[in-house]
Amino acid sequence: MDPAEFRRHAHALVDWIATYSEQVERYPVVPRVAPGDVRAALPAHAPALGEPFETVFADFERVLVPALTHWNHPGFLAYFASSASGPGVLGEMLAAVLNQQAMLWKTSPAATELEEVSLGWLRQLVGLPDAFEGVIYDTASMSTLHALAAARERAVPGVRAHGLAAAGRPLAIYCSEHAHSSVDKAAMTLGFGLDSLRKIPADAEYRMRPAALAAAIDADLARGVQPLAVAATIGTTSTTSVDPVNAVAEICAARGVWLHVDAAYAGVAAMVPEVRPLYDGWERADSIVLNPHKWLFTPMDVSVLFCRHMDVLRAAFSLVPDFLKTAEGEAGVRNLMDTGIQLGRRFRSLKLWMVMRDFGVEGMRAVYREHLRLARLFASWVDADARFERVAPVPFSVVCLRLRGAPGQSAADVDALNEQLMDRVNASGEIYLSHTRLDGRFVIRVAIGHYRTERRHVERAWALLQNLSALGSGL
Amino acid sequence: MDPAEFRRHAHALVDWIATYSEQVERYPVVPRVAPGDVRAALPAHAPALGEPFETVFADFERVLVPALTHWNHPGFLAYFASSASGPGVLGEMLAAVLNQQAMLWKTSPAATELEEVSLGWLRQLVGLPDAFEGVIYDTASMSTLHALAAARERAVPGVRAHGLAAAGRPLAIYCSEHAHSSVDKAAMTLGFGLDSLRKIPADAEYRMRPAALAAAIDADLARGVQPLAVAATIGTTSTTSVDPVNAVAEICAARGVWLHVDAAYAGVAAMVPEVRPLYDGWERADSIVLNPHKWLFTPMDVSVLFCRHMDVLRAAFSLVPDFLKTAEGEAGVRNLMDTGIQLGRRFRSLKLWMVMRDFGVEGMRAVYREHLRLARLFASWVDADARFERVAPVPFSVVCLRLRGAPGQSAADVDALNEQLMDRVNASGEIYLSHTRLDGRFVIRVAIGHYRTERRHVERAWALLQNLSALGSGL
Repeated sequence: MDPAEFRRHAHALVDWIATYSEQVERYPVVPRVAPGDVRAALPAHAPALGEPFETVFADFERVLVPALTHWNHPGFLAYFASSASGPGVLGEMLAAVLNQQAMLWKTSPAATELEEVSLGWLRQLVGLPDAFEGVIYDTASMSTLHALAAARERAVPGVRAHGLAAAGRPLAIYCSEHAHSSVDKAAMTLGFGLDSLRKIPADAEYRMRPAALAAAIDADLARGVQPLAVAATIGTTSTTSVDPVNAVAEICAARGVWLHVDAAYAGVAAMVPEVRPLYDGWERADSIVLNPHKWLFTPMDVSVLFCRHMDVLRAAFSLVPDFLKTAEGEAGVRNLMDTGIQLGRRFRSLKLWMVMRDFGVEGMRAVYREHLRLARLFASWVDADARFERVAPVPFSVVCLRLRGAPGQSAADVDALNEQLMDRVNASGEIYLSHTRLDGRFVIRVAIGHYRTERRHVERAWALLQNLSALGSGL
Repeated sequence: MDPAEFRRHAHALVDWIATYSEQVERYPVVPRVAPGDVRAALPAHAPALGEPFETVFADFERVLVPALTHWNHPGFLAYFASSASGPGVLGEMLAAVLNQQAMLWKTSPAATELEEVSLGWLRQLVGLPDAFEGVIYDTASMSTLHALAAARERAVPGVRAHGLAAAGRPLAIYCSEHAHSSVDKAAMTLGFGLDSLRKIPADAEYRMRPAALAAAIDADLARGVQPLAVAATIGTTSTTSVDPVNAVAEICAARGVWLHVDAAYAGVAAMVPEVRPLYDGWERADSIVLNPHKWLFTPMDVSVLFCRHMDVLRAAFSLVPDFLKTAEGEAGVRNLMDTGIQLGRRFRSLKLWMVMRDFGVEGMRAVYREHLRLARLFASWVDADARFERVAPVPFSVVCLRLRGAPGQSAADVDALNEQLMDRVNASGEIYLSHTRLDGRFVIRVAIGHYRTERRHVERAWALLQNLSALGSGL
């Protein structure tokens, strides 16, 4: 593709992209395709000769667009939203062509230092002290993995050289029964095994019980198990519950246990002063993960780990082969490859920096306040309808609810009724909801988090839930 | 940023991007900034109110552009190149706005199935049998980590639940002394420790010695150490040497050891029939990593792991919490989150698919053939100049060389002379070279891999090396 062709195609693409962004509500949120449809519609082999971009783009429109799940649709109320905001997309466009690989300061001074600057801004905005240094990874799963590896490095002298055998005794990690599965995956990956995970019971509002945590740690200590780390959550995945981080921090401090806080979803909203009390105690953590690609209007992927002990993280991962030794590295300049598994690092801070500048602090706060307001409003609608029950508090922007079912209906039937209702809502194409299970029961989640989601979208979600539940069950 | 503004800014950005791509040779490859320059030139806090994009972009041009290392510059002959080709950038532009998060088939049927289709194409092109299934990760470090985790899963029953304690005996991983540091990082991360790594000596051409490998494995077996995996390399980082994979595969097969092949750089060039013999035996591997973001003209990041035992990889990592259970998952549809640590997955296959279609098979082969030819040509120039020595064979597109130094000069002085020469070349701004150490000596690498690198660029690199070495040493 010569430069003139590239320019022409890129302008055409921008028009498509801008129109797509404006008109995304024309698409069904969840596509109406069956498994295998995409595969079957595409050639089985790469073409021998290059094809005109128009041909490639025609296939994109014909085969791929109808198979997209529209994460940009303001009716996307499933999981946690991710927003491809204008400045975020512009940042990614530049990052793609600049193609920085910021393994070393020297291989991209711009990406290395902008990461530091933009994470400094974010740290201040969410109210964390400057003892926290930030680093960008791709996903929260990786941020949490690195945090727990740092905890291992601190707790097990010699682990880097001798592996887990250096521990000499079993290790344990603690999190609530509502913690994200990334903690489990980290325990598997790092060689602890799932047995090392203590899932601490939660209270009626799905928050870790500190007394149960203290008892579990003390029981482990008594039988010669080494407590390695506690992962507390601010904004759990199912219900956005908030573990009592201050009490947890107290327990960790008294026992010398690493405290990791998973605030992947909710962390960025700490920039809103009136919800800041929900983060009480997180400043005492050893590490905190928050994901701009969830609720900070940046496209996938960008996850931030703030850590009080970046030296420990570096001790766990730094490894500089001859071919990567530079004068700057020896002079103490930060090389991003030293703080993680991945050597290759995209220019992820660019989109984050552009989003923060484009929205401004008050602009970001305004979106959060609207999402928080819409969630409370939605909760009030649920509370006012006797057919539904709201099954969890709404500290942030997610509402958990279910149909109560008729008197005498079995638990399984009520679950099926709720699943059917969710599927009917999703089949509308206007709204996409996902579910969880709480106390064994099927629960529908309404998660508000896309910057384009307005009152009319959550009203529509509620209308669909009401109307489609009145249709009667096909069970 | 409203849609009309986005459209306007995106068009302006496309013009900047297209001009940048056309005129990248106007920039020095390595920027002339000092550590801290970028940080000092940017505000210390996020703005309270949103700023016009023009202001943000002006700072981008003023502060960041002068601090970019231009990986797109055709004079970038350092490390291994990465090309932001036209179709690759177009693919990333679309991926940014579509913002697919392909954790589940349902959350992006298009991204899930296009990954399968495009990796099927790539697998055929590089001549691997269909027993290999592919999966995309961000970087080779992660591909290798996942491969070794799969090896651990197979070799240590119960490791997922009980951790490394389930092994009951020490484990060992084998690679040549020239293997990439990602193998070391995987050994650290997975809890084996660096002690578990056996760095097998290489021969005079920097290839793993199979007899030494067999002896190391057998010695471990004799003393109760469990051999877990061998990582062989096709295209080592320093010299692009090729381990004797067929002989290594024989040794692994006889002892039931997992064979992982690191072909992160060279793997994609297997689509050129005349170099295919260099890959002899790789089809016997259990897993192979190759990185389209190195030599397949796609921007960072996209790394591919081909694995014969995707079921084992899934067994090591699959973990489906309630909130991610879908009917499709239960019906056997592939969910990408099951094959790795990361839950979040960008739409990385889109750029890869667009690149393969835009170039076509013959187009990709033509670029590889030209790079291979230019490297051989460069090697011939070095061989013809008595002041220089070429210190390694050139199986692919990297030439390793050094100044011989004057008779009687100390080894340290000759090293310093070579480092000075490389720094002088890099200071020119026209060419960027990196180094390695071989047998303790400082060696300059000339790595050809950007799709826009032409004969004139490697001629210029050679002229600079010749002219600047004639300047005399400032030592």
